[in-house]
Amino acid sequence: AASRLRLSGLCFLLQVLNILLFAVFARYSPESSPGRCPPQLDCSRRNQDSGFQQPRFRDVHTQVLLSFGLLLAFLGRYGPGSAAVSILIVAFAIQWALLLQGFFNFFLNGKIYVGAQSMVSADFCTAAVLISTGAVLGRVNPVQMLLLALLEVTVCTLSEYILLSLMGVSDGGRSLTVHTFGAYFGLVVSRVLYQPHKDERKREEQQDMGHQTDVFAVLGTIYLWIFWPGFISATAAHENAENWAVLNTYFSLVASTVATFVLSSVLYEESTPRMVQIQDAALAGTAVMGMAGEMLVTPFGALIAGFLAGLISPLGSRFFTPVLRSRLKIQDTCGVHNTHGLPGILGALLGTLLTLLATADTFGDRLELVFPLVTQGSRAVTDQALIQLSALPLTLLLAALGGGVTG
Amino acid sequence: AASRLRLSGLCFLLQVLNILLFAVFARYSPESSPGRCPPQLDCSRRNQDSGFQQPRFRDVHTQVLLSFGLLLAFLGRYGPGSAAVSILIVAFAIQWALLLQGFFNFFLNGKIYVGAQSMVSADFCTAAVLISTGAVLGRVNPVQMLLLALLEVTVCTLSEYILLSLMGVSDGGRSLTVHTFGAYFGLVVSRVLYQPHKDERKREEQQDMGHQTDVFAVLGTIYLWIFWPGFISATAAHENAENWAVLNTYFSLVASTVATFVLSSVLYEESTPRMVQIQDAALAGTAVMGMAGEMLVTPFGALIAGFLAGLISPLGSRFFTPVLRSRLKIQDTCGVHNTHGLPGILGALLGTLLTLLATADTFGDRLELVFPLVTQGSRAVTDQALIQLSALPLTLLLAALGGGVTG
Amino acid sequence: AASRLRLSGLCFLLQVLNILLFAVFARYSPESSPGRCPPQLDCSRRNQDSGFQQPRFRDVHTQVLLSFGLLLAFLGRYGPGSAAVSILIVAFAIQWALLLQGFFNFFLNGKIYVGAQSMVSADFCTAAVLISTGAVLGRVNPVQMLLLALLEVTVCTLSEYILLSLMGVSDGGRSLTVHTFGAYFGLVVSRVLYQPHKDERKREEQQDMGHQTDVFAVLGTIYLWIFWPGFISATAAHENAENWAVLNTYFSLVASTVATFVLSSVLYEESTPRMVQIQDAALAGTAVMGMAGEMLVTPFGALIAGFLAGLISPLGSRFFTPVLRSRLKIQDTCGVHNTHGLPGILGALLGTLLTLLATADTFGDRLELVFPLVTQGSRAVTDQALIQLSALPLTLLLAALGGGVTG
Repeated sequence: AASRLRLSGLCFLLQVLNILLFAVFARYSPESSPGRCPPQLDCSRRNQDSGFQQPRFRDVHTQVLLSFGLLLAFLGRYGPGSAAVSILIVAFAIQWALLLQGFFNFFLNGKIYVGAQSMVSADFCTAAVLISTGAVLGRVNPVQMLLLALLEVTVCTLSEYILLSLMGVSDGGRSLTVHTFGAYFGLVVSRVLYQPHKDERKREEQQDMGHQTDVFAVLGTIYLWIFWPGFISATAAHENAENWAVLNTYFSLVASTVATFVLSSVLYEESTPRMVQIQDAALAGTAVMGMAGEMLVTPFGALIAGFLAGLISPLGSRFFTPVLRSRLKIQDTCGVHNTHGLPGILGALLGTLLTLLATADTFGDRLELVFPLVTQGSRAVTDQALIQLSALPLTLLLAALGGGVTG
Repeated sequence: AASRLRLSGLCFLLQVLNILLFAVFARYSPESSPGRCPPQLDCSRRNQDSGFQQPRFRDVHTQVLLSFGLLLAFLGRYGPGSAAVSILIVAFAIQWALLLQGFFNFFLNGKIYVGAQSMVSADFCTAAVLISTGAVLGRVNPVQMLLLALLEVTVCTLSEYILLSLMGVSDGGRSLTVHTFGAYFGLVVSRVLYQPHKDERKREEQQDMGHQTDVFAVLGTIYLWIFWPGFISATAAHENAENWAVLNTYFSLVASTVATFVLSSVLYEESTPRMVQIQDAALAGTAVMGMAGEMLVTPFGALIAGFLAGLISPLGSRFFTPVLRSRLKIQDTCGVHNTHGLPGILGALLGTLLTLLATADTFGDRLELVFPLVTQGSRAVTDQALIQLSALPLTLLLAALGGGVTG
Repeated sequence: AASRLRLSGLCFLLQVLNILLFAVFARYSPESSPGRCPPQLDCSRRNQDSGFQQPRFRDVHTQVLLSFGLLLAFLGRYGPGSAAVSILIVAFAIQWALLLQGFFNFFLNGKIYVGAQSMVSADFCTAAVLISTGAVLGRVNPVQMLLLALLEVTVCTLSEYILLSLMGVSDGGRSLTVHTFGAYFGLVVSRVLYQPHKDERKREEQQDMGHQTDVFAVLGTIYLWIFWPGFISATAAHENAENWAVLNTYFSLVASTVATFVLSSVLYEESTPRMVQIQDAALAGTAVMGMAGEMLVTPFGALIAGFLAGLISPLGSRFFTPVLRSRLKIQDTCGVHNTHGLPGILGALLGTLLTLLATADTFGDRLELVFPLVTQGSRAVTDQALIQLSALPLTLLLAALGGGVTG
């Protein structure tokens, strides 16, 4: 009874705190009502950008899709019992991320200006939190989950601010700041919380679900195919770059799905892979396209990247997860290391490679959109590639530190 | 056998009647083919409006989402057995609402001009019918359902015409004409049809479903989060007003979800609420934003309103539903009073309050969009608030009368 | 073990082949990056068209919906066990269709230019393949499925090229080239593969699923209602024509649903039809609107067509399927003949009739959009109608030949 009331009280306190903070700081962005633009905001500049920003406003109603896609994906592994807590996490993390990101990025004149753009950013942070919870699902109680969300959103916002704003890393689909960060944060927390006795029982419960798992896995896979490509493009710089990011993501999905069929019959004694494996392949295929999605200029590049990601994911779950469990004492309930961690790292390496190859010749007008700093002459292509590369260990470091402290 | 044939015959007759009525009266709106505009329609004026109307045309393929969202929501409570009849109701009610609303609003030159706009209106009426059926589900047969739809669409169209066209009430997301009207119409019908013996058996059937309920509730909740904010904005006056309505609805959803977690562990002996409760909270959070969605100018207002709606809904189902059942002899199969009725009333009161506070200062250019009559000087802010307030008892009266007659 | 490895090896070989072919031939369409237009492409002409093409680009993320809608629909009949193989088929067929259609339609300067437009075309072919697999589901192994997809995509691309490009048939929603072609291709394959002993066992497995079938059927029906109208319009010529195609499809869906209720209680001893039947009606209602969707100028026409399609489908499954099975030795696992074949033929006949009636008077400006050749004076209305009519037996012939060879 006490723990129930603790959850109830914590929810109440946090929500009241959020409302107070929003009341003091948050206002709707005046972009949408042109007549009320305060002079400090320099609206004329923003209106010039509106050709770029308007299309994204149309997608505002899809912004929470990202998190829910992940949610559906985990339901395939863990069943509807976990859904209630996950939705609580989403509801809380979105508010908290809006506030924190507002303090870093949108803080002007003592107010945070909230708009479609800031909600999309907040949702990316929420997605990272959901990936992390996937690693510890079933072993922490709801109160611990809430605290994890509270801390992870803070670290995630900090990491996004350092990588994207200060260092100018180009990471449109967030291979690094969402997939890799979320996966390793969750794994480190999982390591700290290691308790050898508990997981046997949980595993059995998981097996029980049987048929229902398949239903959710089918739905999750279809959901990922339908909505995810739209997401990758939600933060892409421009209409044109968006188109390519969408197509690249489709090609990657297609190739990673075929790759699953190639490996599953070799690794396991099954004629066709189970739906959950196909779903993991879809997740891996999208994770790998996060950074490289807007950089790839040929369809076969996306096919190769997706094929590799689709091969890495089942290989990882076959050979790497047992090592993680026995040697490093890390339990990975939903296999986030294979579906988000490894493909995210692969995507980041691919993005670095593509940055090195980026020339005005192959990119054309798109160079300006994807790497604005390079076009302005303030940074060489090799410098940009170095920065992209250095973002990877930095992300891993931040994730490990944050996860350790949280655990 | 006779009752089966009666349903079959009724469907056939009604469909033939609909086809005949459409053949005589309905034509596609000539807006979309500029060359064929009859002189009476004054197309030039309409084309001037097209800057406002075009964005809504894009959303035409989401118009039936509203009803189906409700459908999915009820599946969570009542299982797929009810889906077939519900889809029949939707299919019939859309046609009937198009015809009736056409006679009231789009009747020009002896023809009803059907377009995307009129289909969205028809769908709102269909949603009200579905809410009402939620109150009587499991206790009426399909033929009765069809007659209920026939009558309710008529009353609903009348109520919309009086409130929105004649009185000029601003009710963008239809807190009043859909949520409140639908809920109380259904409750009054349920009261008239009260039969003490039948419901025990039904209740047991409902309990049987167990696991599958959760699947539908998870899907329904995700569906509401994804698509509903887009709906609220479907009828909003303008691109800018749309954006705020969408964001307000998200904030309301977020807060009402947290509120469910606050109360569920206090009211019930559960550590986490069941998915059906979270789904109810999502419905309540959207219902409360119906009228106020385009009026709220700060995010924390939406958070507070959603939080209150999320608190009212479980409190209502804990303390109010037993009173309804035992004292007033009203059975509320799907709990529409708590998820649509009470939040709808709360939303209407909130809308009235916000109308009182509406000044050119806080609204800026948006005042003209939300309250066109006020800006034109033909009506004071206080008058508008009075009219908004008086719309509430009027809706309740119409719903009660209509429900009584139907029952 | 050998057959498992054969599937694995075949997937690997085909994917490597696809990657190589894409590497040699496919490049992203330079439309999206205006600065890099090769002179042969005459970009200026294309940019003039961009007013027409841009809206479709927005829908690019919904392109795979078509196939997945069908997938969900078949899940309702056959359960999640078939989902894994179906997704493999989709993943492979999209790549193959892109390559083949590229050789026919987009082959310029030694390269295939891949863009949103070509992906939509490829997806239509994939949908035809999925319809065909629906006829043989449960009786062929995954390797045979892959070979079927390989051959059918080839024939389908050939048929699309002959009908749409050479003959100038107007078939916006692909009644002929997707629904009719896919259905009869699958039926002929099914005839060739006829094995009398196997199907009894399968039928029993199918019965086992029971409850889960309903879940998928509900989801599939909702999916069809929500997303299909958007598809029909994806290939429609123009914004205005799109609107009517969308509305026509809704009316057709509504009427075919009511028609199911009319017949089901007469044909079967059930008070309400099962969800699978309602889903079939929705499929039939959309199939019939494929060709005629952009030609119909009155709502009641769409209501009548949908009503007829909704009547044909259950009548076919009651009286025609047993004849097919016993006399012609064709097994039709998912009933594709009734839901795609017959309504597709009905739609083609309706399209022919409407073409005959098409005059500048009734169509207005739309004539130019739907029948560009007629407006240019190079073809009389009756000639166009003859061509539309002759396309039907040609499609059937190609489907039968292709199916025979494949089988």
